[in-house]
Amino acid sequence: KINADRLWDSLMDMAKIGPGIAGGNNRQTLTDEDGEGRALFQKWCEDAGCTMGLDQLGNMFATRAGTDPDALPVYVGSHLDTQPTGGKYDGILGVLGGLEVIRTLNDLGIKTKHPIVATNWTNEEGTRFAPAMLASGVFAGLHTQEWAEDKTDAEGKRFGDELDRIGWRGDEDVGARKMHAFFELHIEQGPILEAEQKDIGVVTHGQGLSWTQITVTGKDAHTGSTPMPMRKNAGLGMARILELVDEIAWSHAPHAVGAAGHIDVYPNSRNVIPGQVVFTVDFRSPDLSVIEDMEARLQTGAQAVADDMGLTIAFEKVGGFDPVAFDEGCVTAVRNAAERLGYSHRDLISGAGHDACWINRVAPTAMVMCPCVDGLSHNEAEEISKEWAEKGANVLFHAVVETAGV
Amino acid sequence: KINADRLWDSLMDMAKIGPGIAGGNNRQTLTDEDGEGRALFQKWCEDAGCTMGLDQLGNMFATRAGTDPDALPVYVGSHLDTQPTGGKYDGILGVLGGLEVIRTLNDLGIKTKHPIVATNWTNEEGTRFAPAMLASGVFAGLHTQEWAEDKTDAEGKRFGDELDRIGWRGDEDVGARKMHAFFELHIEQGPILEAEQKDIGVVTHGQGLSWTQITVTGKDAHTGSTPMPMRKNAGLGMARILELVDEIAWSHAPHAVGAAGHIDVYPNSRNVIPGQVVFTVDFRSPDLSVIEDMEARLQTGAQAVADDMGLTIAFEKVGGFDPVAFDEGCVTAVRNAAERLGYSHRDLISGAGHDACWINRVAPTAMVMCPCVDGLSHNEAEEISKEWAEKGANVLFHAVVETAGV
Ligand SMILES: NC(=O)NCCC(=O)O
Ligand SMILES: NC(=O)NCCC(=O)O
Repeated sequence: KINADRLWDSLMDMAKIGPGIAGGNNRQTLTDEDGEGRALFQKWCEDAGCTMGLDQLGNMFATRAGTDPDALPVYVGSHLDTQPTGGKYDGILGVLGGLEVIRTLNDLGIKTKHPIVATNWTNEEGTRFAPAMLASGVFAGLHTQEWAEDKTDAEGKRFGDELDRIGWRGDEDVGARKMHAFFELHIEQGPILEAEQKDIGVVTHGQGLSWTQITVTGKDAHTGSTPMPMRKNAGLGMARILELVDEIAWSHAPHAVGAAGHIDVYPNSRNVIPGQVVFTVDFRSPDLSVIEDMEARLQTGAQAVADDMGLTIAFEKVGGFDPVAFDEGCVTAVRNAAERLGYSHRDLISGAGHDACWINRVAPTAMVMCPCVDGLSHNEAEEISKEWAEKGANVLFHAVVETAGV
Repeated sequence: KINADRLWDSLMDMAKIGPGIAGGNNRQTLTDEDGEGRALFQKWCEDAGCTMGLDQLGNMFATRAGTDPDALPVYVGSHLDTQPTGGKYDGILGVLGGLEVIRTLNDLGIKTKHPIVATNWTNEEGTRFAPAMLASGVFAGLHTQEWAEDKTDAEGKRFGDELDRIGWRGDEDVGARKMHAFFELHIEQGPILEAEQKDIGVVTHGQGLSWTQITVTGKDAHTGSTPMPMRKNAGLGMARILELVDEIAWSHAPHAVGAAGHIDVYPNSRNVIPGQVVFTVDFRSPDLSVIEDMEARLQTGAQAVADDMGLTIAFEKVGGFDPVAFDEGCVTAVRNAAERLGYSHRDLISGAGHDACWINRVAPTAMVMCPCVDGLSHNEAEEISKEWAEKGANVLFHAVVETAGV
């Protein structure tokens, strides 16, 4: 069994880096704070006897050697970056859970056949640079490295430049590593486990995602002296499209969700009718045909709103992945571990996207979930109990060790 | 008659300071560019033989002496600050029109009985620091100086600190000056004069304004893993209120307008359901009872939207002025000037707020308007012809000189 106090202390120590304004964290990807968090993780890994590998997108791989020189490693990890107003556990639990697996193996003097690699993937959140799970996506061959490096943040800074700036670009080719398996522990970020009082979610599937960035263009003009019939109010166009997004998502509920989290209004002046609004619609479903239906209805409906109001509209797909079915063998290892430990569990579909969803394309993969209070995540008030973390990490430990062999 | 080429050249020279991104200007109040524009205006005024006065809020007063030592000055001016994506004429034409009146008097060797004072009012636009017409409002006794100085911009910078920073705080008490009259030349910022092919708008009234800043608070949560029924989406609440604002304004059209130009979404991340939206509703009408009706319906309707969605809502009035009737004597002076010059003209109600609306409370005041292309303003593409500027400035010159006496 893992050491719950040590895991918890590490979570709390990491949370000191990039504190938020309301008890959570703002440690966005490729910021100075991200660099600090990486350095702390590296130190901990080296203290645990690991050697750190770093690839050209800053993905970190801390290896604990195995006994069989020919055996591919079992990878275990998640991400250390956070939302701008994020929690202390989303991603971090999975990375430090991986480290805790290694620390526990050291404590117990266990040698595994396959090496174990604790992993931190760069830019999982996708807030600063869309899309989410960017570097694991390159690793899994979904995107090219150049495409990822050219992504820009709201200030126009390039991903590649920011990676160099914080000094965390390595030499390894991205995706060169081959994996025996990959496991990711994560908080559920939804309400099901807590509501049903289950210790463990055995994640069998991940729902798919579609991010459409919409640019509605009208004409910025004086709010006071422009008569109502002469207006081309891009803000009002955006409002009508948000209503449509909600309608479309509800029409498929509970098998879909949808909202726009990102909305930028230009020129954003009290007495100027908005001339342009740029916003991103996030649709999700475990069912690919539902995602396709939502995308199609959004395009048609939003175009009709724009036409009706004399606005122009442009659509750009800035993120997307298909629903995922995780590897049966790995999922079984997770379920068996929960059984063996006597923890209550249920199968789950992940509502969020995870690095595991991409890695599943190139290696047998599964996820372990633990509950979080009120299902709340992407919020500084995100909370879990030490016991939930402990049970999640114990299942992770057992699934990883079973897969790595002793 | 004024010198149209000289007026136009000065407009173009001023427009070189704080250029925009699309041919207009970004010379927002109390920025370095505002300071540069002030320095250029001061130089021009001194070259024209004026002495510059400066009050504690940065209002500028360039005096050309009169012949009667007991006569109060006739003031003439507007503002040099612009919107973030503003035009080259909104405000600037009125300030440089005042300077052109003085330059023309110099050319013609005319001595007026009353002194003439070309004036630049600080922070008319109200974009960086709400409300609009801030310093003229203090001058007219509507607000206290402390209240104005404590206004903060989006980055939390104080008006008073920024005024000190750019070095344009003077010694004069704000509002200490007494005026014989005040005249302001301005572009219409609406479509009527151009549509009716009138040279001159004789502004008899200004419509009233109400700015309500609304804060809608829900709960930021994960867009992917939070089920639809558990959401408290402040972005969707904002969208429904924007629709309501449009409905309310249309219900009083053509005697009212309404929109929200300022909308800030928090935390503004693609995969976070907005936890809070702060936005400002701008309602206007020449009829005070209509403004009051719109405000009341907004409060009731927006509260109902919030209640229905489980959101909380707060309202703050961040700007407002009652409809204005300008001074009959001054209005007649403007109308007579247009008649005498043989220019086509019509009476107008100003759709926008102006420094003249406040100054009218403490001195006999009137405004001259000239057309602008497509009625477009608060847009970098704002445009007027040299001939329109010339006719407006000629009417201003005649009205001012008639009022100042020779
Ligand atoms: N786990 C998580 O929040 N990932 C970010 C990508 C997403 O929005 O699902
Ligand atoms: N003239 C002008 O645009 N003034 C700004 C205040 C307003 O919004 O009316």
